[in-house]
Amino acid sequence: MTWQRRHVLATDDWSRDEIEQTLETTRAMVEVLQRPIRRTPALRGRTVILFFAEASTRTRVSFELAAKALSADVVNVTVSGSSVEKGETLLDTVRTLTALGGDVVVMRHSASGAPYFVAERTDAAVINAGDGAHAHPTQGLLDAYTLRDALGDLEGKRIVIVGDITHSRVARSDIDTLVPLGATVTLSGPPTLVPSAWRCGMSPARTSYEPDLDRALDGAHAVIALRLQKERQHAGLLPSLREYAQVWGLNDERVARMRPEAPVLHPGPMNEGVEIAASVAHGPRSLIERQVTNGVGVRMALLYLLAARPEGGRSES
Amino acid sequence: MTWQRRHVLATDDWSRDEIEQTLETTRAMVEVLQRPIRRTPALRGRTVILFFAEASTRTRVSFELAAKALSADVVNVTVSGSSVEKGETLLDTVRTLTALGGDVVVMRHSASGAPYFVAERTDAAVINAGDGAHAHPTQGLLDAYTLRDALGDLEGKRIVIVGDITHSRVARSDIDTLVPLGATVTLSGPPTLVPSAWRCGMSPARTSYEPDLDRALDGAHAVIALRLQKERQHAGLLPSLREYAQVWGLNDERVARMRPEAPVLHPGPMNEGVEIAASVAHGPRSLIERQVTNGVGVRMALLYLLAARPEGGRSES
Amino acid sequence: MTWQRRHVLATDDWSRDEIEQTLETTRAMVEVLQRPIRRTPALRGRTVILFFAEASTRTRVSFELAAKALSADVVNVTVSGSSVEKGETLLDTVRTLTALGGDVVVMRHSASGAPYFVAERTDAAVINAGDGAHAHPTQGLLDAYTLRDALGDLEGKRIVIVGDITHSRVARSDIDTLVPLGATVTLSGPPTLVPSAWRCGMSPARTSYEPDLDRALDGAHAVIALRLQKERQHAGLLPSLREYAQVWGLNDERVARMRPEAPVLHPGPMNEGVEIAASVAHGPRSLIERQVTNGVGVRMALLYLLAARPEGGRSES
Repeated sequence: MTWQRRHVLATDDWSRDEIEQTLETTRAMVEVLQRPIRRTPALRGRTVILFFAEASTRTRVSFELAAKALSADVVNVTVSGSSVEKGETLLDTVRTLTALGGDVVVMRHSASGAPYFVAERTDAAVINAGDGAHAHPTQGLLDAYTLRDALGDLEGKRIVIVGDITHSRVARSDIDTLVPLGATVTLSGPPTLVPSAWRCGMSPARTSYEPDLDRALDGAHAVIALRLQKERQHAGLLPSLREYAQVWGLNDERVARMRPEAPVLHPGPMNEGVEIAASVAHGPRSLIERQVTNGVGVRMALLYLLAARPEGGRSES
Repeated sequence: MTWQRRHVLATDDWSRDEIEQTLETTRAMVEVLQRPIRRTPALRGRTVILFFAEASTRTRVSFELAAKALSADVVNVTVSGSSVEKGETLLDTVRTLTALGGDVVVMRHSASGAPYFVAERTDAAVINAGDGAHAHPTQGLLDAYTLRDALGDLEGKRIVIVGDITHSRVARSDIDTLVPLGATVTLSGPPTLVPSAWRCGMSPARTSYEPDLDRALDGAHAVIALRLQKERQHAGLLPSLREYAQVWGLNDERVARMRPEAPVLHPGPMNEGVEIAASVAHGPRSLIERQVTNGVGVRMALLYLLAARPEGGRSES
Repeated sequence: MTWQRRHVLATDDWSRDEIEQTLETTRAMVEVLQRPIRRTPALRGRTVILFFAEASTRTRVSFELAAKALSADVVNVTVSGSSVEKGETLLDTVRTLTALGGDVVVMRHSASGAPYFVAERTDAAVINAGDGAHAHPTQGLLDAYTLRDALGDLEGKRIVIVGDITHSRVARSDIDTLVPLGATVTLSGPPTLVPSAWRCGMSPARTSYEPDLDRALDGAHAVIALRLQKERQHAGLLPSLREYAQVWGLNDERVARMRPEAPVLHPGPMNEGVEIAASVAHGPRSLIERQVTNGVGVRMALLYLLAARPEGGRSES
C-alpha cells in the first residue's frame, strides 16, 4: 500500500491498513533506535519545525529526537519569544514557517481543530501533537504499538482507559486506534468526567462505560491510566485528590484484578499517588518508559511517511 | 570583486558593487534552497550564534535555517534564561560567546548601535538582525532581491514605502539598498510618523515625502507597507486604528493606482485590516511569502561571504 | 588507564590519575577546536540532553558546542516550558529523557545533590553542570587545565581563591582538582563568607585561610576571583559593594603582589568594578577568555570519556 495522507491531524478517519502501515514502519524505526548509531539519512536536507503553543517536554523532545534520527534539520518555535506575542495570527505564523522552508510543521495548540485550520492553508505537512481536548494521534499510535508489542494481536483484547475521559485527547486517540485493530475499550472514571452520551450507551463503536473501576478491570488485558488535570478540581468536577486516588487510582490490588501480566500504561507526566500508585508506575507491569521509547519510533515513522515520499529521482521503490 | 567586510551592521555605507555581489550570491543560495536536499557543506564546522535580545520568529528562524543549510552549527541564546539576567554586560556576553568558538554572532537588540559597539570588540563576525529603530540590513537586502526578481533592473523604478517611517529600521535599510541600485523612493505616512527634516525636503538622496498616499501610489512600480507598531498609538502619534486603515492602509483600490502588476511587499508580521487589507496581503500582487523565502537566501549569502572566506589551505579560488 | 566512571557528579573522590586522564583528553580536544573544521565524529548518533533548571549562558552553550563538535545530537530542555511546570518530579523528567534515548544528561539544578539522586536512578550518564553550592566539576577541571597550560606542573604552586567561599561550588571544585595535582590553595574573603571550620584551621588538606588578601597574594602563582552573588548583601553578609571592591576586589596594585606574570582567572559572569577591576579583567594577565575556550575542550573530553566508551564492535583500542 502506498501512503496517501499529507497530514496527521487525527486518526478518527484512518483505515486499519493505514494504522497497520504506520505500526510496521514504526517497527523498522525502533530497530534503527536500537543500533549503536541511531541515525538514518532518510530526511537529510528536510526541515521539521516544532511549533509548540503549549508547554511540553516529552512530546516536543520526542519529535525533536525522531527528526534528528532521520537526519532532518529541526527548528524549535515556542510561543513565548515568538511573533505570536506581537499579535500575529496563527495562520500567518505557520505560513511564514512554511515559506521559510518547513517541510513538516509539528504543532501543539490549546484550541481543538487548530491543526485542521492550518493544514488546509499551507503547503507543509502538518502533524498534530495535541490540540485541546480533541486529538493526540501520535499518542494513540504509540499506545497501540506498545500494547501490540506486549499482547500480540489486539483482536478481541479488552483495554481499560481510566480517568478524565471528557477532557482527554489521549482517550479519543486511543479509541480511534485500538478499536480498528480489533480491541474493545472499557472506559471508567468519575461520571462528571465522562461525556454524558457515552455514559448512556451512545459511546463509540466497541467501547462501553463501566463506572465501577474494579469491575472494569476484572479480566482486562491492559489498562491505560490518564493524567488527572488537577485544575479540573477547581471546576467542581472532582472530589479531593485523596478521594480520587481511593476510588479511581490504580494500585497493586486493582491491577491484580486484570489478567496475569496485563500491562499498565500512562501517557505521562504522572501524578504519582493520585491516578497511579508509585508501586504500579515503577512496578513490573508498567510499560510507561517503553511508551516513551516507542513514541520516538512512531514519530520517526510518521515523519518518514509524510516527508520522505518518493519525489523526482529519489524513489523509495 | 573580493568580499572585504568583516561585519554586516548596516548597509548605509555599502557600495553598489557590494550590494550587487550580495544579491548575486543570494541567487546562488536560492537555487540551493530549491534543490530536493537544501544543503551545502560551505560552513561545516563553523559556529553561528543567534543572540536575540528581542522577540522574533521569522528573522531568528530564517537565520537558523540559513546557517543549517550551509551545514554550520547553530546555537540559540535568548536573553531570558541567559546570564544577561544575572547582570552581565552585553559586551561580556558577546566576548564569552566568541571565546566559546562563535564564528558569527547574529544579534538583535533594542538599542540602536549595539552591534557596532560589539563588533569593535570581538573577533567574531557580527550580523545586525535589527537594532532599535536604526537598521535591519538583511531586510533591506531581501526586499531589494525580491523587487529585482519581480521588476528586473531597479534603475528608474519608483518604490513607495508607507507607514511609520520614523521608527522603522526597515524603511532605513530599504532606502540604503534600493537607492544605490538606481531606484527612487517615495515615502508616505502620517506626518507625525515621518522625521520632520524628511518632510521638509531634507530626506536622503533620491527619496521624497508625499503625504497623500493615493498620489504617492499613482504610477508607482511597487509598494512596501510597514508594520504599524500599535503601541505608537498610546503615545498620541496615531488616530484610531480604524482611521489609520482608512487613510494609510493598502487596499485593493489603492493598489490599483500603481502600474499594472506592481507588487506589494510587507516585512511581517502583518496587522491585517490595519496597514494592509487581507485581500491585498494574500492577493495576486503580494510578494510577502516570497520575501520570507528570499530572506533565507540573503542570510545564507551573508553568512557565506563573512564566514567561508578563504583561509589556510581551504581557498575558494 | 581505562576510564571507569559512569557519571561526573563531583571531583571530590577523583584520583590524580583520573584528573590527569581528563586533562590529557582535553588537550586532544582543544587541538580539534583549533582546526579549521572543529568537528570529530566520536559521538555521532549519540544524544546529549542539556537539562538546565537554572539560568546559564556560558555553561549551557559550552556543553552544546562541545557535544556538537563531537557530532552528537543535542536537545535543550529548560524548566520553563517543560513539564516540570506541570508538577512532574525531577526524577520522572530525567527518566523520561533517558527513555527518549538520552545517552548523557547534563544537568544544572539549584538543589545540592540533585545529580546524585538522578544518577542512581537512570541508565544515562549524568554530568553535573552545577548543583546549588555543592559542586561544579567541569569548572574545576577547566580551571586546572587553564592553570597548567599557563604555569606548567602545578606541584608546589600556590593558588589564591578569593571571594564568597561559603556559597561557591566553583571554590569547592577548584580545591578538589588543584590539590590532587600538587598545588596548595590559599582562600581569602570576608570571614562572613568563609565556612567557620575552614577559618579555624580545619580547612581541606593543603588549603588555608588568609583573611588579608594582600598577604594572600604576596608571591602567589595565580589567583581565581569568584563571582560575588549580589543577593548575599541583602542577607547582611556583606558591607556595601564599594567597600567589598576596596577590601576584596582584584585591582592592578594587588595583582602586582603576585609573582611576575602570575595569571588571573574568573569563572564569569563578572561584576566588573566589584570583585575584579575592568583593567585586570581585560589586562595582560587575564586568562578569563582562555577559560571559556578551554571549557569547551574539557566538556568534550568528559562527553567523550563517558559516552564514546568501547561497546560491541566499536572498540577504541
